Amino acid sequence: MKVAEYLIKRLKQLGVRHIFGVPGDFNLKFLDLIEDEEGIDWIGGCNELNAGYAADGYARVNKIGALVTTFGVGELSAINAIAGSYAEMVPVVHIVGTPSTKSQAEGALLHHTLGNGDFRIYMKMYEGITVAQASLNQVNAKSEIDRVLRECYLKARPVYISLPTDVYDKEIDVADLSSLDLTYPENPREVEEAAIKQIIEEIHKSKRTIILADVGTSRYSTTKELLEFVEKTGFRVFTSPMGKGVISENHPLFGGIYIGNVSEPHVQRGVKEADLILSIGSLKSDFNTGGFTYLVSAEKTIEFRHDRVKIFYAVYENVSMRQILPKLTSRLERQPSLTQVEPPYQYQPTMEETNSQQITQSWIWKEIASKFLKPNDIIVAETGTSLFGLMDVRFPEGATFISQVLYGSIGYSVGATLGATLAAKNNKIKRRIVLFVGDGSFQLTAQEISTMIRNNLDPIIFVLNNDGYTIERMIHGMERKYNDIQPWHYCKTLEYFGAGKKGNTVKVSTKKELESCISQLSNSPLNEIQFIEVIMDKFDAPRSLLKTTENAHN
Amino acid sequence: MKVAEYLIKRLKQLGVRHIFGVPGDFNLKFLDLIEDEEGIDWIGGCNELNAGYAADGYARVNKIGALVTTFGVGELSAINAIAGSYAEMVPVVHIVGTPSTKSQAEGALLHHTLGNGDFRIYMKMYEGITVAQASLNQVNAKSEIDRVLRECYLKARPVYISLPTDVYDKEIDVADLSSLDLTYPENPREVEEAAIKQIIEEIHKSKRTIILADVGTSRYSTTKELLEFVEKTGFRVFTSPMGKGVISENHPLFGGIYIGNVSEPHVQRGVKEADLILSIGSLKSDFNTGGFTYLVSAEKTIEFRHDRVKIFYAVYENVSMRQILPKLTSRLERQPSLTQVEPPYQYQPTMEETNSQQITQSWIWKEIASKFLKPNDIIVAETGTSLFGLMDVRFPEGATFISQVLYGSIGYSVGATLGATLAAKNNKIKRRIVLFVGDGSFQLTAQEISTMIRNNLDPIIFVLNNDGYTIERMIHGMERKYNDIQPWHYCKTLEYFGAGKKGNTVKVSTKKELESCISQLSNSPLNEIQFIEVIMDKFDAPRSLLKTTENAHN
Repeated sequence: MKVAEYLIKRLKQLGVRHIFGVPGDFNLKFLDLIEDEEGIDWIGGCNELNAGYAADGYARVNKIGALVTTFGVGELSAINAIAGSYAEMVPVVHIVGTPSTKSQAEGALLHHTLGNGDFRIYMKMYEGITVAQASLNQVNAKSEIDRVLRECYLKARPVYISLPTDVYDKEIDVADLSSLDLTYPENPREVEEAAIKQIIEEIHKSKRTIILADVGTSRYSTTKELLEFVEKTGFRVFTSPMGKGVISENHPLFGGIYIGNVSEPHVQRGVKEADLILSIGSLKSDFNTGGFTYLVSAEKTIEFRHDRVKIFYAVYENVSMRQILPKLTSRLERQPSLTQVEPPYQYQPTMEETNSQQITQSWIWKEIASKFLKPNDIIVAETGTSLFGLMDVRFPEGATFISQVLYGSIGYSVGATLGATLAAKNNKIKRRIVLFVGDGSFQLTAQEISTMIRNNLDPIIFVLNNDGYTIERMIHGMERKYNDIQPWHYCKTLEYFGAGKKGNTVKVSTKKELESCISQLSNSPLNEIQFIEVIMDKFDAPRSLLKTTENAHN
Repeated sequence: MKVAEYLIKRLKQLGVRHIFGVPGDFNLKFLDLIEDEEGIDWIGGCNELNAGYAADGYARVNKIGALVTTFGVGELSAINAIAGSYAEMVPVVHIVGTPSTKSQAEGALLHHTLGNGDFRIYMKMYEGITVAQASLNQVNAKSEIDRVLRECYLKARPVYISLPTDVYDKEIDVADLSSLDLTYPENPREVEEAAIKQIIEEIHKSKRTIILADVGTSRYSTTKELLEFVEKTGFRVFTSPMGKGVISENHPLFGGIYIGNVSEPHVQRGVKEADLILSIGSLKSDFNTGGFTYLVSAEKTIEFRHDRVKIFYAVYENVSMRQILPKLTSRLERQPSLTQVEPPYQYQPTMEETNSQQITQSWIWKEIASKFLKPNDIIVAETGTSLFGLMDVRFPEGATFISQVLYGSIGYSVGATLGATLAAKNNKIKRRIVLFVGDGSFQLTAQEISTMIRNNLDPIIFVLNNDGYTIERMIHGMERKYNDIQPWHYCKTLEYFGAGKKGNTVKVSTKKELESCISQLSNSPLNEIQFIEVIMDKFDAPRSLLKTTENAHN
């Protein structure tokens, strides 16, 4: 078997059905093998950054994704996407087609180099943003491929593979192609047992135990264990913006989205009154905590992570939440708790708002949530007014939320939508993919709409046209020229990118128009791309964004 | 004076009149100061990679350029552009708005970080692709700014400046804002004198001395010195693809573009027959040497570089060409040389070609060169059929050629055109900017056309629509699907990006149509953007590209 074939077959075993990237002369022959392999498709992006975002979006739905670029120019164009995957704990396998080992050894002055004979510099740049790197050759290929793929999967972070042009077709001996060993290491028994005893004791002492479940829960495949724990104990569970979706937001024990002082009042109350907090897979970044207004003190928090448990100030190393949670579930009975589940806060619009036909931030997200979103939707939100608008609305059953709450690279959502839409094809049920992106962010990566058209994909795309970088205006420079952008004819997007008769475009400027558009979208079976331009005011921002920027200024 | 004001004033002193970039929350307040400064304009790009390409294109016309991005997401999106500037020796000052020194010291879990408290990682990634880095604070700001700007200018490579949000407005004491000291270090006198004697001796011995002038000549500001040397000695001078423009291609002593066995026959002959080669500022990369077919042996070559002279095998360290050339000029008389200047080779089309109206690669570049290009044009070519097509055609007087012959990042040319067009505004004479880009490359960075429209720029853009990545087809996978792309409505480009009534679009499919389009463009005063879609065959490639890929396969 050829080295590259082995790599492709391993990716397939992990569930990869689509590989993203851009062709370049050092990867072309590898692409031959991808195109020729049954059951795996090459998805060429318009550029490498967008393809990297697509691989990330794909991995968030499909557990793992893959990206192929060419040496230097390609891999560096994609580096920001991979850094985002690292920050947000998304497992992406980045394969770079590199010059032949001979050229590398000679330090040849090839194109795509820096002209200084250094062929290792790009890989070095990747060291800080990938959990494993491999430079393949005929001898190490099999073990190195297995090693980095395992790291990628278990650590839920990107890895980097250099595949030289004279290595991809080298024959290697593969007697046995049984699945990769993907078992997590066992928790140290005695340490775990000590932690369990202590945790049970604390739970028994507590009157108001709550669970704060965050993004690590889904990234380290612990959602099933969480759900069983919640249902057995009966504890109220709150999530974070990044944790949206780790438990159903319609579950009777779901308490709401906790974002520090940005959250709805009853959610803040529920967390504040708790005397014991079981924090699961937490990531306390600024946007995920309402600008560091979490105020969850260590002395009443038990933290469960993928690699340790921390009871107040005591760390129990190498005890993973994934293994300890089921043991707690089996040893605990339903626990009494005084924490109430309260109905979500209902925003009361002013009379002026109600009478106006202007589409406002305070109106649109409730409208979308209550009338448009459906079970199993994949909801992609750009880090802008879209993310903040959606942060604390409740999602339907089975929804998946894709957004870069931590890394926050604008333009990400368009590429991620491409990836998520393809990944959803691997699911048994048909899922809708819905993108919300502002005009400013859309401009960074707009050309990837053409890749959606080319592949006959059917996402529903809302471009919120509010005439510039509204999130930046809220932070600084409300009326500054640098926050303005060139107005495009967004309604011509599908036409420009060559959709022909595929797809529908609608432009809505009033509440009535949006309502009617939503009702049409909801009632027809969709199998084409939908593009909706929504006209909004440039100085209008969601409540949660205003509160978060206010926190940052304090 | 505020730290950021000092930085802006220093950039102005160096001739920077436009700063490129994308706003982000860690640079917004710095942008206030740029917007408020007289005589320097903020040019917001659609994304950071494109803005980085623009800063590079700007620097190639204006000697130096500047880019502002935000921490993490912004700087990593632009990293491929800066790597290109490094490889191609283009001085770009990259200023990154970073979080406050307080947040950095605390390792705060801010958005745009990797979530691990490491605030130095992005700057570390820049270490290999910039010649100097500075992390500004109130104490070091003045000296560090001066240091890195000096390095940028003298070494003709990019530099990196981190400007934290709590540093930009710190007051510093600037008693004296006299110009930066930009003098090059003096050549070591005795070493230089030894070299001069040896060189003159070799020249006197030689019967056929020629000059091969390459890209380093212009990057290290030695074109004037070269011209004086050529005119005094009377040596024939050949250039390389990257060296196009270091001497006028209409100069009576100009011998042609030497690209190894890819060059025209009489050029190959001229170089082959030489018994002494004065190689000035050379960069022997694959595409610049016809795939390493230069065959210029060290034993008859004297190499002049910005940091050393090498006579055959002997290196004279720290002797820069910029200082030694004038001394040679003054000591040498006109030298007899047997190397002939021959008229350029005229391609003879076949009867079939002549009769066909199909626009071919063998026809279009001669046509462009002979009927369209004008003195002082700035000609931007993408690393594709455009670059190879233009490699060996003769340019008019005063033309500037912009292309990434070494680094070869596709999509570069669109951003570079934005930068070059703005830089040309700083020139006293009106210069046309002409871009040649293929459809595949255009798709990577197309949105930057909108920035040209927004700023009322008037480049002339030829998009060669040959239905995919033709240069890749020539290398491998002629009919492979991965070399196909989504067909866009290129003719709607200006309309889609909001040009309104600005600009003109033409689509040409036949020789006659192109001739008539060229004649119209040549005879009217242009002050609006021009967009020409040229339909070409997807399997048609310029002779020099075919020969180069043939070399690579051998």
